[in-house]
Amino acid sequence: MSGDASALLAQIAHIGVDPERGGYTRPVFSAPELELRAWFIAQADHRGLDVEIDGNGVIWAWWDAPDARRVDAIATGSHLDSVPGGGNLDGPLGIASALAAVDVLRERGIRPVRPLVVAAFPEEEGSRFGIACLGTRLLAGLVDPQRVRELRDDKGVTFAEAARGAGLDPALIGPDAARLAAISAFVELHVEQGRGLEDLGQSVALAGAIIAHGRWHVRIDGRGDHAGATRMADRQDPVVVAAETVRALRAHALVVDDARGTIGRIKVTPGGTNVIAASVDLWMDVRHRDEPAVRRIVEEVTAATERSAAAEGCTVKVTEQSFSPTVAFDNGLRERMHAVLPDAPVLDTGAGHDAGVLAGVIPTGMLFVRNPTGASHTPAEAARPEDVAVGVIALADVLETLITR
Amino acid sequence: MSGDASALLAQIAHIGVDPERGGYTRPVFSAPELELRAWFIAQADHRGLDVEIDGNGVIWAWWDAPDARRVDAIATGSHLDSVPGGGNLDGPLGIASALAAVDVLRERGIRPVRPLVVAAFPEEEGSRFGIACLGTRLLAGLVDPQRVRELRDDKGVTFAEAARGAGLDPALIGPDAARLAAISAFVELHVEQGRGLEDLGQSVALAGAIIAHGRWHVRIDGRGDHAGATRMADRQDPVVVAAETVRALRAHALVVDDARGTIGRIKVTPGGTNVIAASVDLWMDVRHRDEPAVRRIVEEVTAATERSAAAEGCTVKVTEQSFSPTVAFDNGLRERMHAVLPDAPVLDTGAGHDAGVLAGVIPTGMLFVRNPTGASHTPAEAARPEDVAVGVIALADVLETLITR
Repeated sequence: MSGDASALLAQIAHIGVDPERGGYTRPVFSAPELELRAWFIAQADHRGLDVEIDGNGVIWAWWDAPDARRVDAIATGSHLDSVPGGGNLDGPLGIASALAAVDVLRERGIRPVRPLVVAAFPEEEGSRFGIACLGTRLLAGLVDPQRVRELRDDKGVTFAEAARGAGLDPALIGPDAARLAAISAFVELHVEQGRGLEDLGQSVALAGAIIAHGRWHVRIDGRGDHAGATRMADRQDPVVVAAETVRALRAHALVVDDARGTIGRIKVTPGGTNVIAASVDLWMDVRHRDEPAVRRIVEEVTAATERSAAAEGCTVKVTEQSFSPTVAFDNGLRERMHAVLPDAPVLDTGAGHDAGVLAGVIPTGMLFVRNPTGASHTPAEAARPEDVAVGVIALADVLETLITR
Repeated sequence: MSGDASALLAQIAHIGVDPERGGYTRPVFSAPELELRAWFIAQADHRGLDVEIDGNGVIWAWWDAPDARRVDAIATGSHLDSVPGGGNLDGPLGIASALAAVDVLRERGIRPVRPLVVAAFPEEEGSRFGIACLGTRLLAGLVDPQRVRELRDDKGVTFAEAARGAGLDPALIGPDAARLAAISAFVELHVEQGRGLEDLGQSVALAGAIIAHGRWHVRIDGRGDHAGATRMADRQDPVVVAAETVRALRAHALVVDDARGTIGRIKVTPGGTNVIAASVDLWMDVRHRDEPAVRRIVEEVTAATERSAAAEGCTVKVTEQSFSPTVAFDNGLRERMHAVLPDAPVLDTGAGHDAGVLAGVIPTGMLFVRNPTGASHTPAEAARPEDVAVGVIALADVLETLITR
């Protein structure tokens, strides 16, 4: 049904279902994500949009203006990849709503004076190669392409290998200033990742800011040994140190107002029940509106980990994998969006987005759609169909303003 | 070279090498373990031993006595599977030494009056299906065959499926009293898993006892959510609870003299950096010479975990996966072994063994070979070639006594 984002999402509800974790696991360039990319291309074709895939693997679907020149364009879209065991909305809702908004605008008989392009960005979650918003970071020149080519997933597959497996040429990744210069504004619609709208009793919000956030890889090396034959006093057990890292992060994040500190990924090597571990890798996710607060938490947790490691005879290495300063979205664009959606509240978010990366280079805004559970990165994320429909209309209204004057 | 266990081990040094963890990963019924089983059968064939594989997947290689009746037999052997990232000695040293001892006895022109059988037991480590000494536990009727058929590995493969993949019929697993009744003694040679012999400056020891040990699976359920959008106060994070489990086990094991408590395996689900985990599975390994001390530690750690879970809004389930009481090896057999090896010290061990399971049903003894690093379940485990040679002669001497009178 034309203009119905829920119906579009239903078409992909079988792709990448994770029977073990529940929900969906759609890492970038995996079979399910490639199936989603093919679905998006087919939907764009079906609408007569002109599809191109750039060197970074971003899919762009163009609704060209009458003069067919691809400058001063308005972009919308989101991502198709998911976290392990995520929902069907985080990413795909923005893509489906963009396609549905194109339908709505055409039904309205809108005549664009500038092009509209719907984009699908790869590896927004960073769940395969560790760097969130990797596609937009590459596009904007915020990450070294050679470093990216050499990134490895859990199975040891490099980004370059995975990209080739997706039919891309990894030699072509990297900054693309000309492409960004052709876009005059980007608007991303996303399911809300908290309870803000539910608490306010509203369907749609505008984004105020994305709070600063980063990821740190913590590597703790100890000495592998036999769980039965090794006296407690003789141990150099990195799991004991890792437990202190978890405790310290919780404690330090709790005392800083509105900070967020999470360890959700831990790898114990070799990982046998009757084996004292040789090493632990874990990843810290830390966020706060003020960048210095984030830095201070990471320093304090690092210090606590190092003290524990010294006592245990282990060594620690903490590496920053990514850091995104606080993003304040473009005021001028938000005012234009607000004029179209005067009742929409303005909400900050703790979640990162491709829009947050692009906000550094082009005027960018976001729309959030109510999530009644407030849950995110879990199958429990949700959006009522009536709110999805309101979101499509809101996006269409905003895009109409942007492409017609 | 006949009688050279080090040369036999060199033949298998390329099998199951783990490039990621280092050392060897040879889970039961995996491709590398099946290759080791084929190698053992070929070595037995080469020596004219008669090979049979029983319903539990134990490989028995018979050196029959002149009357060819398989009763009152002497058994020796060990296992071929490894922990993840283990060494080449834990298990294979006992198999290689048994084959080499057969060579030595034949070179001596020994005429057995009863059969000698070399056995390779599957899943001693329990690293694939969670129950250590699974082959001997099945044989001795200490574990329910139906439960075993349904055990799943990390990938969701059942024991029944894995056994079928190894050419076995899982319908046939279970107690085999007749087979055990035909064995009058079992002697297992094993690399020492501590520094006892190194500290004493000796090559070979006899086992005194195996201290009581068990494994408990701890499942902590919380609520998966977004690492950025979820306030600290709203979280139900099972990783925070798991950290308390690790801390409590260390603390309680430290205060009980000579206790051992280890968590070396942790699985965080879904396992994304920017995802508050929905659940954590971890496994506790607890050991002490006195069974009540083990029980007390597990109770205290369970209580600490439950308190943490209550505070965090999580739930906890602790399940005993296996428990092995303290094993005192047969005194009569040890005296006969001591008469042959009068200088060998008697050492207790914190490590479990198939010999410990079989000690409950038949007279059983063990020989340990010096390990200069004292390390075990890691590639750092070691044995000097001269000590391996001394071990083979010691085993041959013991077996000669047992099969000739």
